[in-house]
Amino acid sequence: MNMPAKLRTGGALVAIGGAEDKASDYRILRHVLALSGKEAPVVGVITTASSIPADVFQSYKDAFGALGAAEVLDIHIRDRAHAESDAFVDMIRRADVVFLSGGDQMRLTNVLGASTALDVLRSRRAEGTVIAGTSAGAACQSRTMVYGGPADDALRKGAVKMSAGFGFVEDVIIDTHFLERGRFSRLMEVGATNPEYLGVGLGEDAAVHFDGSILRVFGPGHVILVDSSEIGESNVFDLADGEPVAVSDVKMHALVDGYGYDLKEGRVLRPDELKAIGLEHKVAYT
Amino acid sequence: MNMPAKLRTGGALVAIGGAEDKASDYRILRHVLALSGKEAPVVGVITTASSIPADVFQSYKDAFGALGAAEVLDIHIRDRAHAESDAFVDMIRRADVVFLSGGDQMRLTNVLGASTALDVLRSRRAEGTVIAGTSAGAACQSRTMVYGGPADDALRKGAVKMSAGFGFVEDVIIDTHFLERGRFSRLMEVGATNPEYLGVGLGEDAAVHFDGSILRVFGPGHVILVDSSEIGESNVFDLADGEPVAVSDVKMHALVDGYGYDLKEGRVLRPDELKAIGLEHKVAYT
Repeated sequence: MNMPAKLRTGGALVAIGGAEDKASDYRILRHVLALSGKEAPVVGVITTASSIPADVFQSYKDAFGALGAAEVLDIHIRDRAHAESDAFVDMIRRADVVFLSGGDQMRLTNVLGASTALDVLRSRRAEGTVIAGTSAGAACQSRTMVYGGPADDALRKGAVKMSAGFGFVEDVIIDTHFLERGRFSRLMEVGATNPEYLGVGLGEDAAVHFDGSILRVFGPGHVILVDSSEIGESNVFDLADGEPVAVSDVKMHALVDGYGYDLKEGRVLRPDELKAIGLEHKVAYT
Repeated sequence: MNMPAKLRTGGALVAIGGAEDKASDYRILRHVLALSGKEAPVVGVITTASSIPADVFQSYKDAFGALGAAEVLDIHIRDRAHAESDAFVDMIRRADVVFLSGGDQMRLTNVLGASTALDVLRSRRAEGTVIAGTSAGAACQSRTMVYGGPADDALRKGAVKMSAGFGFVEDVIIDTHFLERGRFSRLMEVGATNPEYLGVGLGEDAAVHFDGSILRVFGPGHVILVDSSEIGESNVFDLADGEPVAVSDVKMHALVDGYGYDLKEGRVLRPDELKAIGLEHKVAYT
């Protein structure tokens, strides 16, 4: 069978760089709802990452409500017991779109890792539920998760803090608030430690839709891809903790709304090429 | 004649990314003085860029004094009349090392552009005077000078402000405080507008010695080189001011103390390769 990648991965996965517009145009959130394919989808908001979950839920309730959601569910899982509770698990089951708020990605993985809530989220995604997350809710999506490290010069051995993420998407490592907090050196350090993973640096108010092996950029901001697969020189294994890392031949792409990237072929897709691929996908669906 | 590049360019040129150590180890300032080849060089400090020139002069006087300078001259040129004055021009003539302080690079070019002081500085460099500058005093050294632009997302058409610099070095465009202020997107924007110039992003407490066509990195911080010569896709000419720029295949190198770059061959030099080149230069001198 020669199925397009999109069909294999179930519901759409969207990672947002933080600070997405929740008040005026809703360009990104509107697109997220549309990916569900439903006129009036049920949206579940997981606020686990946040330290002010009630406020965060309210702002998303307003936004998704204004955009025509049938219902916005408050999935305020605060601890591991909550992550086993039938009430919250049922909300995840009912949602057409599950949205992971910002905050601290370590709270997300610590509370939801190896939980029934996460199991159900994974199986629901296989059945077509859209998963979207912003900031911490985006960073947690890769198999290896970046959770800390100084922005001022992260290109020092051991400076970038990494742990295991949820692995909703393979082959990439995600960072957020990327241009606004000057995090280029973080993904250069990550690439030096293991060049196999494409660094996806999401700017604020910018998003990526992981569509099988195609990465589709949307929103007003920038997405920077950091490709370390062809790096040459590096001293990273010779260094003590904190010493500055040298690395050559890191390739970067700055993408904006309408551009894409083919993870398998390792190349940027222009808006016209990406549209052609979209049509192929549509044909395969019908 | 097959002279090495170093001989053709006269005195050494050094660009420092700002915030270099002026109090403890003086790693960078010590190296700058050593490049003069004199035991006890006369150092002239041009504080034109600074809004607090007296304070800035005092800290460099202390530092260079502690490092064995025979004399530290206070070249406090504040306006275009000063830049013609015999007193200041004579100081430049006497100095073995001329140091340009930080501040605002636009003050430097506005006050010193087309002046006798600058003419004398250029001719003294041809005779062997070392020129070094930090922050604004580094940014002004390239032919095209970056003097502004937001760090949070400079990859928008027209966001990076450029003007004409002193052109002490060709083929590069210099930016400073590069990692600390997250200025990667500034040099990506510069590269998209004209891929011909190598972007030299100097981190704080990091320096580059422009040694003919060889660029030598020293100091505790990082130097990021932004090579746009192979960029592919870009939408830059289609955009209105402020719209986000897309650009693919920007190559970056993160270099640390001991590494170098060959501007002619466009390749990174490992510390061992760079040492070999250093020896060749020495042989050519004797």
